[in-house]
Amino acid sequence: MVNYPNGKKTLIKQGIKEPHFQRGANLEDDLNQTNQYYLDLNRANIHKKPTPITVVKVDYPSRNKACIREAYYKIPSTTDYNGVYRGIAIDFEAKETKSLTAFPLKNIHPHQLQHMRSVEHHGGLSFLILRFVAYDETYLLYLKDFDRFLQNNDRKSIPYAWVKDNAYSIPFSLTPPVNYLNVIDTTFFKGASK
Amino acid sequence: MVNYPNGKKTLIKQGIKEPHFQRGANLEDDLNQTNQYYLDLNRANIHKKPTPITVVKVDYPSRNKACIREAYYKIPSTTDYNGVYRGIAIDFEAKETKSLTAFPLKNIHPHQLQHMRSVEHHGGLSFLILRFVAYDETYLLYLKDFDRFLQNNDRKSIPYAWVKDNAYSIPFSLTPPVNYLNVIDTTFFKGASK
Repeated sequence: MVNYPNGKKTLIKQGIKEPHFQRGANLEDDLNQTNQYYLDLNRANIHKKPTPITVVKVDYPSRNKACIREAYYKIPSTTDYNGVYRGIAIDFEAKETKSLTAFPLKNIHPHQLQHMRSVEHHGGLSFLILRFVAYDETYLLYLKDFDRFLQNNDRKSIPYAWVKDNAYSIPFSLTPPVNYLNVIDTTFFKGASK
Repeated sequence: MVNYPNGKKTLIKQGIKEPHFQRGANLEDDLNQTNQYYLDLNRANIHKKPTPITVVKVDYPSRNKACIREAYYKIPSTTDYNGVYRGIAIDFEAKETKSLTAFPLKNIHPHQLQHMRSVEHHGGLSFLILRFVAYDETYLLYLKDFDRFLQNNDRKSIPYAWVKDNAYSIPFSLTPPVNYLNVIDTTFFKGASK
């Protein structure tokens, strides 16, 4: 990377594939783009929920305009994404890690896990989308597989090797960046198992 | 109502049924209580989405604390409530009106209506919960019935009488206050039609 005087960064390419993370896209942006693409194509209706905040103080500079002057982020009690696809209620959480070796479990709050189990209990489909930034690899880990890991391990993180073996790789594409519904088509709906 | 010096209000009851709206509960509070009740009983997993805001300025008074100092409310592009019940993705909007004669349609944004149609296209169930505050009456109006109204009318509001005839009354109860899943059980799942 070279820092030019105008502050913009550019990548000197020397025939090396530009890793995805160096383009500055994060998983949330990629998923928002992907979900918008699904919506535009009428393939699914899946949205990121707004970030929950507690509003403490609101000003009204004019009659129709409210300006929030003091507010705080809340810990989410559910997952970030949900919607409907092929008649199934979809519910998932997406997280990225810079670790080379494992996905830290502290990223998933206990009430989020409880929420995901509840969704499946009522007939929805719940999963995690995990990105290892260093490898530019994104995986879909079904709740049932994640729960199997938790039942058999006391670890505070999921080893990268375990993810590679038990989650489904979501290949990167341009449109959409994270085509996770293709993975759901070929695994959940076709009943394939790993 | 009598205003006592300490600022608290109380209702003088003279054998008259205390109307619900006089207790100060609004539809959103009632629905949050109802959804929590469903969650506690493991009957359904339905949540209100956080209100979407655009954050402009954030202060960090300490390393782990973020204080939002400037933010604005956004117009929601989806509905307020969604989740899963009996294997079906549930998606609805809830609104109350003080009007005695009609429910004003300006309360439902065009992109919310589009969102509700999209949810049904993908196999979910979408509806409105409407409360006429003056009568303390709450109704569940299925999207298909609402769409039928829109196709046959150019009105800017739905007459109260039409709602009474075409939506399903949700009787008030204490626990939960708005038992809309009972209505869904006896109409959607049992295939009854009005």
